[in-house]
Amino acid sequence: MSYLDQITSPTLLLDENICRANIKKMAEKAARNNMKLVPHFKTAQSHEIGNWAKDYGITEVTASSIKMAEYLSGQGWENIHIAFPFNPLEIPKLNKIAANQSISVQLINAKTAKMLVDQLEHPIGFFIEIDAGYGRTGVEVSDFGLIEEILLIAKKSDKLNFKGFYLHPGHTYYMPDIPAIYEQSRNALSMLKNKYSTEYPKLVTRIGDTPGCAVMEDFGDIDEMGPGNFVFYDLMQAALGGCDKEDIAVCLAVPVVDIKKDRKEILIHGGGVHLAKDVLVDENGVKNFGEVVYLNEHGWTIPESRSFLKSISQEHGIIKASDELMANIKVGDILGILPVHSCMTADAMGEYMTLDGKKVDHAEGIAH
Amino acid sequence: MSYLDQITSPTLLLDENICRANIKKMAEKAARNNMKLVPHFKTAQSHEIGNWAKDYGITEVTASSIKMAEYLSGQGWENIHIAFPFNPLEIPKLNKIAANQSISVQLINAKTAKMLVDQLEHPIGFFIEIDAGYGRTGVEVSDFGLIEEILLIAKKSDKLNFKGFYLHPGHTYYMPDIPAIYEQSRNALSMLKNKYSTEYPKLVTRIGDTPGCAVMEDFGDIDEMGPGNFVFYDLMQAALGGCDKEDIAVCLAVPVVDIKKDRKEILIHGGGVHLAKDVLVDENGVKNFGEVVYLNEHGWTIPESRSFLKSISQEHGIIKASDELMANIKVGDILGILPVHSCMTADAMGEYMTLDGKKVDHAEGIAH
Repeated sequence: MSYLDQITSPTLLLDENICRANIKKMAEKAARNNMKLVPHFKTAQSHEIGNWAKDYGITEVTASSIKMAEYLSGQGWENIHIAFPFNPLEIPKLNKIAANQSISVQLINAKTAKMLVDQLEHPIGFFIEIDAGYGRTGVEVSDFGLIEEILLIAKKSDKLNFKGFYLHPGHTYYMPDIPAIYEQSRNALSMLKNKYSTEYPKLVTRIGDTPGCAVMEDFGDIDEMGPGNFVFYDLMQAALGGCDKEDIAVCLAVPVVDIKKDRKEILIHGGGVHLAKDVLVDENGVKNFGEVVYLNEHGWTIPESRSFLKSISQEHGIIKASDELMANIKVGDILGILPVHSCMTADAMGEYMTLDGKKVDHAEGIAH
Repeated sequence: MSYLDQITSPTLLLDENICRANIKKMAEKAARNNMKLVPHFKTAQSHEIGNWAKDYGITEVTASSIKMAEYLSGQGWENIHIAFPFNPLEIPKLNKIAANQSISVQLINAKTAKMLVDQLEHPIGFFIEIDAGYGRTGVEVSDFGLIEEILLIAKKSDKLNFKGFYLHPGHTYYMPDIPAIYEQSRNALSMLKNKYSTEYPKLVTRIGDTPGCAVMEDFGDIDEMGPGNFVFYDLMQAALGGCDKEDIAVCLAVPVVDIKKDRKEILIHGGGVHLAKDVLVDENGVKNFGEVVYLNEHGWTIPESRSFLKSISQEHGIIKASDELMANIKVGDILGILPVHSCMTADAMGEYMTLDGKKVDHAEGIAH
């Protein structure tokens, strides 16, 4: 029986071979550059995919919330890092995890550092997050006052151990010149390493975005890379040049519920609650919420003539279809949709199905 | 102990009083217009909120997927309608529900009608969905050929019973002239009722959008209204004039993790996986992913000087803060965020917390 026979409603398909190839390729790139790959598991959020990653030498992972860290803990990871400015309200939960799991957090202000010093019950590590121009979060790279204030506070406790500097250059998602952003990021991390490595000889530097880790070859003296999206990739990454569409490891299987021949449109059950609402907009203002692939019993193929989701609402999606697709489609068929943003799609779906019909876990599919 | 003491991570708060007032007001409006209110529960997706609705005479509800209908079945509803072009792959699931629950579906093509005639095991009802200009889904109002083809097919089975015409004028969400859209919708439904009521004397007409149901007073001879969003409302509805911000019944409680004084920005734990990514864009292109309210032990207050979410990513949100907010905020505080699109936020969160600290169920919070 094909996996396709099990599908009657929107289902997130996962091609294990593509996913493993993506992990392997990034692990090899990290090795080539003498870097450690610590994947950000906000994308996969899965024990099973974590086990696949271990086959390629991955020993540590990153989470973006305490909830996700709870889910990933106890799975044999040497360390779990929460790459999000630590929320001091969650110190009790952190203490619980840290009793049995090596864990690290991210700090960007003195207040949270102080609260950790006062309330930590078990040793944890911490990175200082650096903002070298992205402007979302982090200590500004030149703000040595704040960096040293945090380090000084941490010294008061034997439970809060400095690990190094973390930089997420998220502007690689919307600024075209990734090499320039990376030059700035490399220089920032290198300067900080030089400045603080005498006092902290073991400190490491880590860089975190998928577009950069996928495109760049020169990482200078950065020690670790922490991309997340690369395990699946998606249309946004393909648009940024970080992958080919053939590298995308997930697609949403969707039932066809109506066909409008005159408008060349196909109505599917598949909308914002499945794909999330991330969108690509082309130079003419045309929106693209996902692209059609043809499913077969071994996986999917990418058609030469493109069909795409022109609009979505909560449960509805409308495909602008190619002539080829229009000629072959019927109500009751199932199509595949490559997502614009696979992290958000996986989080919305909370579960995967592999091409042999097995379910793969995702943190969001677990009951509250 | 205040509900606030329980919150350490993003939590969707639900003000029962506001929610009940919204339901009561719409029920009274329906009664004033001799209409039946059949709320669309794609917004609430909750047994508990269903029980509140029953206090105001609500006896039927609408779902937007078979999965949601499964969740709502067995809760004492006289009928559950699935207001989505029926997906013929789900006939086995429909048969299961229909064994114990009165249920109706929506049809817009002959093929699905035929498949139902062949495979139905229990009687169900159906509406024909009409497109009177929205262009998302439905039979075009003048396409009597298709309407009659569907009716003719249904006659071959004693299990597929015509209930009437359903119209969702979703263009009230992005076209300013709601009265004009409603005139067109009233006329379309009235014409169809006149044309088919001799043969189907019990047929009813239903109209489905919240902006129209909230704003309009003249529904002509339409029999039923099926808005969904009105149980909670949100910033989008407020922008459309369907509610005041004081009518919004849900807000996302979010922890403050950092403050950038120079930029007047506050970093919160609260992003796309919590709020979804719906956005309001003002005339200057400024994006608004949600607006700040101040939480207290009885609920929340809307500040006079506005602070809003200027950007969100998967878990991060950045608030552009008013001077008043900047003067009072500190790391570790909890703020409230009124959502742009409450249906999507509720679906992303999968659970509510009332102002007395009780959990309220949502279909998405149930394990797969």
